[in-house]
Amino acid sequence: MTERNASIAIVGAGDYIGAAIASRFAAEGYRIHGGRRQGEKLADLEARIASEGGSFTGHSLDARREQEIADFLDRVDADAPLEACIFNVGANVRFPILETTDRVFRKVWEMACQAGFLTGREAARLMLAHGRGSIFFTGATASVRGSAGYAAFASAKAGLRAVAQSMARELGPQNIHVAHLVIDAGVDTAWVRERIAQDRGSEAAEEMSEDMLIDPASIAEAFWQLHRQPRDAWTHELDLRPFGETW
Amino acid sequence: MTERNASIAIVGAGDYIGAAIASRFAAEGYRIHGGRRQGEKLADLEARIASEGGSFTGHSLDARREQEIADFLDRVDADAPLEACIFNVGANVRFPILETTDRVFRKVWEMACQAGFLTGREAARLMLAHGRGSIFFTGATASVRGSAGYAAFASAKAGLRAVAQSMARELGPQNIHVAHLVIDAGVDTAWVRERIAQDRGSEAAEEMSEDMLIDPASIAEAFWQLHRQPRDAWTHELDLRPFGETW
Amino acid sequence: MTERNASIAIVGAGDYIGAAIASRFAAEGYRIHGGRRQGEKLADLEARIASEGGSFTGHSLDARREQEIADFLDRVDADAPLEACIFNVGANVRFPILETTDRVFRKVWEMACQAGFLTGREAARLMLAHGRGSIFFTGATASVRGSAGYAAFASAKAGLRAVAQSMARELGPQNIHVAHLVIDAGVDTAWVRERIAQDRGSEAAEEMSEDMLIDPASIAEAFWQLHRQPRDAWTHELDLRPFGETW
Amino acid sequence: MTERNASIAIVGAGDYIGAAIASRFAAEGYRIHGGRRQGEKLADLEARIASEGGSFTGHSLDARREQEIADFLDRVDADAPLEACIFNVGANVRFPILETTDRVFRKVWEMACQAGFLTGREAARLMLAHGRGSIFFTGATASVRGSAGYAAFASAKAGLRAVAQSMARELGPQNIHVAHLVIDAGVDTAWVRERIAQDRGSEAAEEMSEDMLIDPASIAEAFWQLHRQPRDAWTHELDLRPFGETW
Repeated sequence: MTERNASIAIVGAGDYIGAAIASRFAAEGYRIHGGRRQGEKLADLEARIASEGGSFTGHSLDARREQEIADFLDRVDADAPLEACIFNVGANVRFPILETTDRVFRKVWEMACQAGFLTGREAARLMLAHGRGSIFFTGATASVRGSAGYAAFASAKAGLRAVAQSMARELGPQNIHVAHLVIDAGVDTAWVRERIAQDRGSEAAEEMSEDMLIDPASIAEAFWQLHRQPRDAWTHELDLRPFGETW
Repeated sequence: MTERNASIAIVGAGDYIGAAIASRFAAEGYRIHGGRRQGEKLADLEARIASEGGSFTGHSLDARREQEIADFLDRVDADAPLEACIFNVGANVRFPILETTDRVFRKVWEMACQAGFLTGREAARLMLAHGRGSIFFTGATASVRGSAGYAAFASAKAGLRAVAQSMARELGPQNIHVAHLVIDAGVDTAWVRERIAQDRGSEAAEEMSEDMLIDPASIAEAFWQLHRQPRDAWTHELDLRPFGETW
Repeated sequence: MTERNASIAIVGAGDYIGAAIASRFAAEGYRIHGGRRQGEKLADLEARIASEGGSFTGHSLDARREQEIADFLDRVDADAPLEACIFNVGANVRFPILETTDRVFRKVWEMACQAGFLTGREAARLMLAHGRGSIFFTGATASVRGSAGYAAFASAKAGLRAVAQSMARELGPQNIHVAHLVIDAGVDTAWVRERIAQDRGSEAAEEMSEDMLIDPASIAEAFWQLHRQPRDAWTHELDLRPFGETW
Repeated sequence: MTERNASIAIVGAGDYIGAAIASRFAAEGYRIHGGRRQGEKLADLEARIASEGGSFTGHSLDARREQEIADFLDRVDADAPLEACIFNVGANVRFPILETTDRVFRKVWEMACQAGFLTGREAARLMLAHGRGSIFFTGATASVRGSAGYAAFASAKAGLRAVAQSMARELGPQNIHVAHLVIDAGVDTAWVRERIAQDRGSEAAEEMSEDMLIDPASIAEAFWQLHRQPRDAWTHELDLRPFGETW
């Protein structure tokens, strides 16, 4: 692996998608920085990527706080010029409309939309100074469809998608690639497999996981391919879904 | 005019669209209640509708506050059963992404999206008890398109649209009609005409206003037609635009 | 009823939606002309509308043939100036992709799309000379969604929708109102009720018809409201669906 | 380059996008077969790919004829199992609606939509027998937007997009990857550069070509990346546009 003097920031560096993105970009020689609420939970990921010869630094970060996200990205950029920033914070909840409290509606929005806006804006600030960069957002089915029971989640995800679209139109001509990836399926995590197993008996769950779940590594690969696109042919939005999915 | 023992709530009962909606539904004999931040500004509207033989009551209301919107709608429903609730709060702002402050992003969302969610939810609470009702939301071009410079506004409007869509899917089968009206043009107001006149010289402005602006009364008529739809043929979303508009 | 010296053309004047549109506009005093493949089947409709005091003339018409549709609309316009033209030809078929023959794909397109293009273009020709008019198209769920098994039907309906959109953008500024109505449900017809009854037992079918089917008269009313819109607030597209529909 | 016992069919193997796709997949060791109306025009491409160590065979093909496309794909599959089929036939025309003849409307549809349906269906027939494969369609801005003057082209492209979507939903669970690529920009070809130069003076044209045109090789790369996607994370639709494009 050739080391590169460039950094990648992952906001929402959780156990699955965020971790897979970190590994994928680390394998390309970038210096990876991941932020999540409890940064200490990133120690295992740091060790794993180090064992693979990559560079990963974990940070405690509440991306809803303007100053925290600005400071985080400044630190990343000081380590090596920020080349890509990926916002990957989820907040999927389901409630009937009458049981959706003001507090839930606000919290989901702060995590899934407002933090994404702040992350995108602060990344743009640094990248405009460099004259280049990639800003990517993880979306979901709810980004493009308000299903029954998902008023809070769909509202926040649709709001994030609009931020991405507006930023793409403004920043594209300034050489910053803004993209939004719609994941239209369950992601293959221990939690999802467990839930499926409870629902259906473990045999069906096993079979389903083969056909209906996305491997986080495949999502990470999609982000990497987006980042590699030449600037004469940038994708702003694409969907990802397993072959067996009904849609 | 035959008086009806039923009330209509208008949240965001401003000088133009909200006022026109109030007049239109008042002409059908409903008891109209309008809320805006400074309810005292509704005195003229109240007088005008009274002079036309209609019933209008103005209320001071900050729809971003859960308790205020709940109390407002409870009072309306106590006056006469709430039959339709129309959310019509705007917050159009334009800033380059780097100049979009966290405060602006949050304020726009609170006014254009969160207040709409609270209004819709509280209206649904009362209407589910009655077994019927209409909940309508005023949208804009930004509801379906994130243009450069509109990250805050488009995000909030897209978020509101997702709320409307999710509520429609959940509440339709419970006999509540939820609709979202996309106004894809400038609305004919003193402020818009003035701005056009400054931009272009007053002659062009005059001509433009003929071809490119929507009369608030036409928007009010569209809401009235939505409310009149039989339940076997409800519209969830429609656009409105003047014949001369380029889109 | 006040008679008007203006005519309405309905292409695809079948037993249900087309007949309902004819009745609705006839009740407003227009001279109605309906075309379908076997015009003699329109005798009952003609008698019924006459008994209601309206004017309806049935025509044999193959709308896929350029000369036939041009001649038909010329004759209508000669009777009284053409004020609205509604294209309402359906061709819903379902086949797995491997069983979708070239012949079926072409026939469905000719009926549902090419005939609509010809109808719209010929109506525009006459209306541009008058400086006004309405051109409306009946759409379906398939207009906006290509479901499995509907490659032919969805392709034709999506193609028709694009024609409507393109015509709206070109002709709106010339004072011609082009709209597309997406019917997202089954329509209440003898045939549909029978099919439901076979599928489910007649009790369920009866209940379903209450919640899940659109009355053709409600569709006709939506077209009438579109035609009545003032030109400062035209709708290009709206959906119609019964309250009980899952979507 | 490792030779693979698998073939790729390109329908619409023109001078630019089709040729670039041929080169890209040839470089991966596939046996490439390209069809166009006048197959003899493919001699240069065949020589060039051969000189790069790849395999390309040109065919004369009218993809609007069911038997021709079936025979073509059978021959390709007989050479080596068909692994990917890319439909890349364009037919961009612009006419005011009144000048859009029935003949033009039909020809554009036959080339851009019906031929795509036949190509997709015949590829699916062979791939279902193999239990795998990729079927990709080249789309354009007009696939998702009916602009003024583009009734014929937008109708055909929207119709093709619906075919792709319907096929994706039916064939995905059978392990066939169907995708639709929306090219939202001009493609960098001699013809486009010349037209720009005529419009704007050659200096501006030069600058524009840098910011606003897509290199066919970049489109080919996007198709290759689609083909490489693991089946747990397939993209059905993505857009491609140069960084300087206004949209």
